[in-house]
Formats: sequence, C-alpha cells, structure tokens
Amino acid sequence: MQKKIRNAEILCVGTELLMGHTLNTNAGYIATQLSSLGIPSYRQIVIGDNPSRLLEQIKESAKSSDLVILTGGLGPTLDDLTMKTAADAAGRSLVLHQPSLDHIESHFRNLNRKMSENNKKQAMLPEGATVFPNTNGTAPGAMFSCPAATQKEPNHEAFLVLLPGPPSEMKPMFTLSLEPILKDMAPYYLKSEYVHLIGIGESAAETAIKDLIEAQDNPTIAPYASEGECMFRVTQRIDEDTDADLLTPLIEELKRRFTENIYEIGTRSLPEVVLDMLKEKKKTVSFAESCTSGMVSSFMGDIPGASSSFMGAIVAYDNQIKERLLNVSSEILETDGAVSERCAAAMAEGCRNKMQTDIAVSITGIAGPDGGTEEKPVGLVYIAISDDKSTKVISMNGRGNRMRIRRVAALNAFDLIRKSLL
Amino acid sequence: MQKKIRNAEILCVGTELLMGHTLNTNAGYIATQLSSLGIPSYRQIVIGDNPSRLLEQIKESAKSSDLVILTGGLGPTLDDLTMKTAADAAGRSLVLHQPSLDHIESHFRNLNRKMSENNKKQAMLPEGATVFPNTNGTAPGAMFSCPAATQKEPNHEAFLVLLPGPPSEMKPMFTLSLEPILKDMAPYYLKSEYVHLIGIGESAAETAIKDLIEAQDNPTIAPYASEGECMFRVTQRIDEDTDADLLTPLIEELKRRFTENIYEIGTRSLPEVVLDMLKEKKKTVSFAESCTSGMVSSFMGDIPGASSSFMGAIVAYDNQIKERLLNVSSEILETDGAVSERCAAAMAEGCRNKMQTDIAVSITGIAGPDGGTEEKPVGLVYIAISDDKSTKVISMNGRGNRMRIRRVAALNAFDLIRKSLL
Repeated sequence: MQKKIRNAEILCVGTELLMGHTLNTNAGYIATQLSSLGIPSYRQIVIGDNPSRLLEQIKESAKSSDLVILTGGLGPTLDDLTMKTAADAAGRSLVLHQPSLDHIESHFRNLNRKMSENNKKQAMLPEGATVFPNTNGTAPGAMFSCPAATQKEPNHEAFLVLLPGPPSEMKPMFTLSLEPILKDMAPYYLKSEYVHLIGIGESAAETAIKDLIEAQDNPTIAPYASEGECMFRVTQRIDEDTDADLLTPLIEELKRRFTENIYEIGTRSLPEVVLDMLKEKKKTVSFAESCTSGMVSSFMGDIPGASSSFMGAIVAYDNQIKERLLNVSSEILETDGAVSERCAAAMAEGCRNKMQTDIAVSITGIAGPDGGTEEKPVGLVYIAISDDKSTKVISMNGRGNRMRIRRVAALNAFDLIRKSLL
Repeated sequence: MQKKIRNAEILCVGTELLMGHTLNTNAGYIATQLSSLGIPSYRQIVIGDNPSRLLEQIKESAKSSDLVILTGGLGPTLDDLTMKTAADAAGRSLVLHQPSLDHIESHFRNLNRKMSENNKKQAMLPEGATVFPNTNGTAPGAMFSCPAATQKEPNHEAFLVLLPGPPSEMKPMFTLSLEPILKDMAPYYLKSEYVHLIGIGESAAETAIKDLIEAQDNPTIAPYASEGECMFRVTQRIDEDTDADLLTPLIEELKRRFTENIYEIGTRSLPEVVLDMLKEKKKTVSFAESCTSGMVSSFMGDIPGASSSFMGAIVAYDNQIKERLLNVSSEILETDGAVSERCAAAMAEGCRNKMQTDIAVSITGIAGPDGGTEEKPVGLVYIAISDDKSTKVISMNGRGNRMRIRRVAALNAFDLIRKSLL
C-alpha cells in the first residue's frame, strides 16, 4: 500500500448516530488525526444500518476519495453489516480469519462467558485484507482496496478502512494499526506541536496573537478551545523545499507572550503535568472535594502510576462529613457557610492533617442548577491549597451548566497545584 | 407545501466541523427532532466551506431525498456561501428581503454597534423562499423547493431548508418556524421507548430475543451497546391504520425475558435510577473507592439533588489510607492484599462506620495497565456492599483499558446497590 492518498472521507455507520441517540465523536477524532497526518478530508457522512443504502454510499464515496474510513457496524448482531457490505463493494468474499477468532474466543474465556454463535461473524473478514487487532474489544478492523472507476480515472481504486464504532476500541486501533500505514501514504509530511494554556479564554488568547494568526503561512497556528482551557496547534508542512525547523522560533514567541499560562508543550493533560511535577519534587497530594464530588481524584486516578504521589481523598458532600472527617468547625459552617473562603481553607487543612500529605487541595462551590443566591450565585467555587508553609484560597465564578462548572473547578484545582510547584 | 416528505437528510456546512475543531451537535439534534416528527432521515453529511463541492453535494442530496436540511454558512463573512450556493442549485436568484434587513439593522442598533456592510448580505434570500426569522442572531433561515429530476422520478423536487450554524440560533428557528411546517408533511408518527439493561452483554441480550428481532415489523426493536451496559429502543409507527398501543405488550415481554437485568424503561441513567431508589427508601449511601478513585462518587455528584442521599466518600488510593481512614487491618493487607474479597468487605464496613450511612459500597481492583499478576490479573475488581444486616462481596474480570475497567466497575457498584434495594 505505497500509493499516496490525495484525499479522504469518513463514513460513520449506525442508526443510533443517524437518529441522534449517540453523539458522533468519531468523525471529529478521525478528521483531526488525518489533518495532523497531512491527509485532507473533504466530507463526513453518517448513514444507518441499511445494507443497500450503505452499499450505494460506499461505492459513491470510493469514487470521490482515495481513502474511505468507515466506523461502526462491526458488532456481532444481525444489523452489524458494515464488513459484509464493504466486502461486497470491493468484490471480495468474506473468509475466516483464524487469529481473530482465537482472540474473540479468549476474550470470552477471560470473561467467564460463553461465546455466542454470532460472535464468530466478527472473524469473517474480506479476502486479502490487512487485519487490525482490537486491543479493547472483539471486532477486528480491516483495510483493503476497492475498485472505483470514474470517467476521469478509469483505473481508480480507493482504500476502504473499517474500524469499530465504540471510541474506546476505535481510537487505539487508529493509533496502533492505521496511523503507521497512513504515515507513509500522506502527500506530504506535517510536524505539529501542541501548546496548552490555562487561565486565559480562547478569544483573549487569540487576540494576543492576532498578528501571528493573520501572517501565518508555514507554520500554521490553529486555536482550539475546550472547557476551561485552550490550545494552539502549530504545524509545519515539510517537503523537499522546506526542512528547516520553523516550529521552535514560533513556540518561543508563544512562550514569551503567554508565560505562566502555558502548562504544556506536548500532549500531556494538566493532571498528567501536575502528577509529573509532584513525582519530580517527591511530594504527595490529597483532595477534599465537595461540589466536584470525586472528580479531581478521578482525574488523578485516570493516570497510570498515580499512586506514587496521590494518596487519596475525602469527598465531603454533606456538611456532617466536612465536620466529622475534615474537622471543619460548626462555627464556620454556620457563620460563613460551606461555600466560603474559610470553609475551603479549613477543608484543605483538615484533609492535609488527616491524609498526612505534603499538599492538600479542597474544592467547595455551587454547581447548580439550584442552590444559588444573589450573594452566592451558581458557579461560585472556592479552591484552597495547603502545604507545610501556608494555606491559600482562590475563588472562581464558573459559567455554564453543572458539569461544566465542576470540570472547570477541577482543572483550576490542578492549576493551583501546578503554580505552587513552579 | 402540503406534499408528504418520505425521507430527509442533513447537510452541515463548515470547515471547522470537517476539521474536527467543532463537535457537530446540530446533526444529532435535527435527527432527533425529525425522528419524533415521524420523518425518516437516512443520511447526515458534513462538508467544508467550498462552493463547488457544496453545490455538487446539494444537487446529489436533493436527488436522494425529499427534504435536505442544511446548517451553517449563513454568516456575514466571505466564506459563508451556503445561501448563494443553495439558491444556485435551485435555479433561484437572490433578492433583498426587506423585513430581514430591518431585523439585522435593529439588532445592531440594540447592541449599540455599527452594522458592517457585509451583514447586508444576510438579507439577500432566494426568490420565492419561505423566510424564517432568527430570534437569537442576525441570519434568517429559508425554505424553498429545488428541482432534482432523477431517472425514476423526472418531476422530483426536494425542499431545501437553510438554518444557521450556531445551535443557539438553529434550535429556536427549528422549533418556532420549521417544525409547524414539517408536522403537516410527515408521513406518520413514531413513538419510542428505551429499555436499559445491565449485567448482560449485547450479543447475549440479542440472542435472548432473536425471535422478536427477526419477526419485527411494527414495533421495531433496535439494540445499542455501550461500556458495561446495553439498551433496546422499541419504536411503534403510528398512522391511520394502527393507533393501538403495541409498545406496552412488547415491553412486558422484554421484562419477562430479562427480569432483573432491566434497570430502566425510560431515559434515566443507572446512577439516576439508584439515586431515585435511595430517595424513595430514605437511605443514605457512601463509597470507599480504591481503583475507581472517586469516579463512583463523581457519577453521583453529576446528578442535581444527589445530596439528599449521598453523604460522601473516602478515596483510599494508598494502602495507608485504607488502614488509617477505613480501619482495614494490616493483617488483611499483608495476607490477602488490597485487591481481595476480605479487603473489599473491610473497606465497605469501615466506610459505613466512618460515614454513618445506611449503605456503604467499596471498590478495589487492578485497573492496569501494570500491576497485574497471574493470580490477580489486570481487570480483577472486588466490589462490596455493606448495610445494617450484612456485607456482600462480588468480583468481576474487566476487559479493555484502564478507563474501561474503572467505568465498568463503577457501573457494577451502582448495580449492586440497585439489586440490594429491589
């Protein structure tokens, strides 16, 4: 498969996507990956589990593009027809792929469950296909060529790639199996760096580098915003004419302009950056969470190897728990209330004492939708950090729904640790 | 516009969607609305701000469907070309729509801003179009017919509907202006129910009702799987011939076959169901989390009003915390280890004691990727529930990556509470 891919399209199969029951996050993920591989994608399509419409769409898409990436419809059930339909479009028959069957059988053995007959279907793959193992489920993926003659190009062939629908299976398969193949097939080579910022809004960040964005050619700068943080992707297009390093000077300029707001140049998340800093400084941490109710701890536990620095947390959702387990005085709770500077400070100190960690961080606030007052509106959150020297409290006024307020509060808690360790 | 609409498709325009920078929530929203209006939609397409590719796509879509709903590209800037391109496809010229211009001008007056010349473009609409006012922004929407002859139907015409891209403008326009028109054009009315199951795999669940799925006509049954649970959507098509309730008997049959595996008929998540049960039985709950490190508590805190039953949690990531805060004996930790039946039981009991709740649930396991042994492999999780009568421990062998193992463990913890309250 050494042919260059000029363009790609993404075809997501599933009635649940078509009906709007499941949000299509796969298309965006794949588009982003293709873009950083240097493969332009011009179209995304969602279509239901209907074999005749799917067949027609695969044929049409194969004529329009050099690469068609399909997701979904690889499950064991009757309406999972993508593999069969794509094989039909390519004029290939399905044959048993023994290593895939072995994998599926061992999957069920490990679960102590009986494999049902219809799971065997997932090991039936198009003749001559490159097979992608599924590290997170049963359905293997596949890649194979499909003749798709057009008037302009009577010898046109497209590559069909079939990936499973669940993002937890699709993403590792993309990274582990497909990406290495596509790297050699991109029309040119792109080199990207990711500059992650926190504590500054997207439009403020964009305004600060308006001149750079307007003047961009190569490298390019693309801003992305997500809840509570933002990111610039800077991308240099490398071909025979330009192989000098144009990224480093641009990143240096961004560092000059944003200083402390940059928490990472690379791919680590904010909790990963904080965990690495804690490890390096040999510090332990614990959390006392009220409105985030375990979210900060859970972000920590998402990271393999967190146990070297992360000891644990007390989720004090109820005020009784704040009193009993964190030793917050009833006087504070009565006078200032649970959402207050003094309560946040007492929670952090009580947590540090109870957990015996170098650092403890507390979060208490009003996540909504109810419970806000004029004085303490929904979105008001106090975050405190306590170490052997002092206790410091910050406040934030979160906007948006309950989930957003809690997530942004959790990120701000990590940022507070980061700044204290700088 | 009294013609019946047999099928629809959704065409979202915008390079930011195509590149994956913006998540496409419009397609799902419109699909859901169409579905409840009884208009089948067979395809969703995302395409960039490229007029020639867009023109080609509109023509192709108009041939395939009776209704094409476009979103995006109605803004004032140079690359907002959807209205012009759709008018071209329909062979209509753009003419000034004075009420829209008046609205745009008053919008800017209200903001105390000067209207820029290019905003006038937004009042240029296809001749003869039905115009939809924008209650939340400047760009009006439009609906008009587009000749799209096919071999089968030489007189075929499709309706093109153009809506703005920002969801805050698109949604009210859909509800206020488009829905009343589409109601009269739907071929039939659909009624759906959602049956949620846990503790049974997708293929086993489907095997158990293979006969129902194969015999389905009206109502239909569609299975969906997600991490650790699965769901059936049952849908009745209601027209003049069939207005009897066909859903209830089918749901009763599903209840007979799946009994305890069904946790919800409706739209509540498993944590929501459990919280409602706790409220109804006036029980309080707390958690002792090791490998899930706050995820169970966080799921609880996601729900507004959780505080009535959810007191708090102890995240005992480190064994010292298990000993000190949960009173797990060092003998258990040394002999059986932290991932063991006895440790899970001791954690639940210690938590219930410390938190003084009616029920306490503990989770301890090996989420990986490292830390597994032959005897205790990655994925092994113990979950214990303790109340005033007894303590019960279950084990699971989770598959997949760290995140999946932890999520499925968290769901199983909720299911254990649910079963204890049945």
